[in-house]
Amino acid sequence: MDFSIRAANVEDCKDIARMIVELAEYEKMTEHVKITQRDLEQDGFSKNPFFHGIVAEVPEQLRTKDGHTKIGYALYFYSYSSWAGRAVYMEDLYVMPEFRGKGIGKALMSKVAQLGLAAGCNQLNFTVLDWNQSSRDFYMSQGCSDITTSMGYHCMRCEGEALQHLAQP
Amino acid sequence: MDFSIRAANVEDCKDIARMIVELAEYEKMTEHVKITQRDLEQDGFSKNPFFHGIVAEVPEQLRTKDGHTKIGYALYFYSYSSWAGRAVYMEDLYVMPEFRGKGIGKALMSKVAQLGLAAGCNQLNFTVLDWNQSSRDFYMSQGCSDITTSMGYHCMRCEGEALQHLAQP
Repeated sequence: MDFSIRAANVEDCKDIARMIVELAEYEKMTEHVKITQRDLEQDGFSKNPFFHGIVAEVPEQLRTKDGHTKIGYALYFYSYSSWAGRAVYMEDLYVMPEFRGKGIGKALMSKVAQLGLAAGCNQLNFTVLDWNQSSRDFYMSQGCSDITTSMGYHCMRCEGEALQHLAQP
Repeated sequence: MDFSIRAANVEDCKDIARMIVELAEYEKMTEHVKITQRDLEQDGFSKNPFFHGIVAEVPEQLRTKDGHTKIGYALYFYSYSSWAGRAVYMEDLYVMPEFRGKGIGKALMSKVAQLGLAAGCNQLNFTVLDWNQSSRDFYMSQGCSDITTSMGYHCMRCEGEALQHLAQP
């Protein structure tokens, strides 16, 4: 299939915001999405951005019935492992359902890996939901390891009132 | 106990490197530690640092038998949630064994939370090992949630030859 991968720019935030909601619908978690197009514009495309993005595009003749040509994206940021040093974290990887199985997700993930290696990163980290077997199978086929299962890492979070309370001196 | 928390500077990297190894010994994972003092100096204290750090110090009269006054640290970096926006990730939180139970770990974590909130972050994320019950109990007592258990998130990693292979176009 004819598609291209490129760095996201501020004009892509509307489509990225749309696809973030689509991904959350797929993950059955839409109630958690608080982010807006404007948040993405501010947080990703100002000085000292909190994340970077790449988008997958198809030519006009392959656009969806709703007129979309931006049909996939990945968000990532640089992180750090106190054991392995520089790392890249892939926050999201998404391809619209009708464009799956054509190598677009692989191409997006490959691009994040390339960018990470170019920045001196030794690891690509991300999370997957335990029930999302097709994604798990894909990641395992790429040589990724599940370090929750193999090493016992659990993801922890503090937010809302607990975070406010924790920050009290 | 008399202690202080302050931002780490490049002169702290020797002690941070020492404590990274001590933490890995506690976690029974020393074979994974590839990082050096020099890596920390370059990656944390040059333009566009990959991480930030804070250290806990005690006065000279409380130094350890080996002469250490830097007795705890936390490493963190800014990250992003495509649902909740700006977030801070705490990579490490460590206090030397003889100084535990005195509120130093809580003070370090509180400082990371303060810095995160000041930067507009809505979440503090980190990982914990499933067998590390004392740490898990501490985090839960602070209102943190285990989103691996509650939502099914698994930590995934790609590194080494698999990462090189993934990056091939």
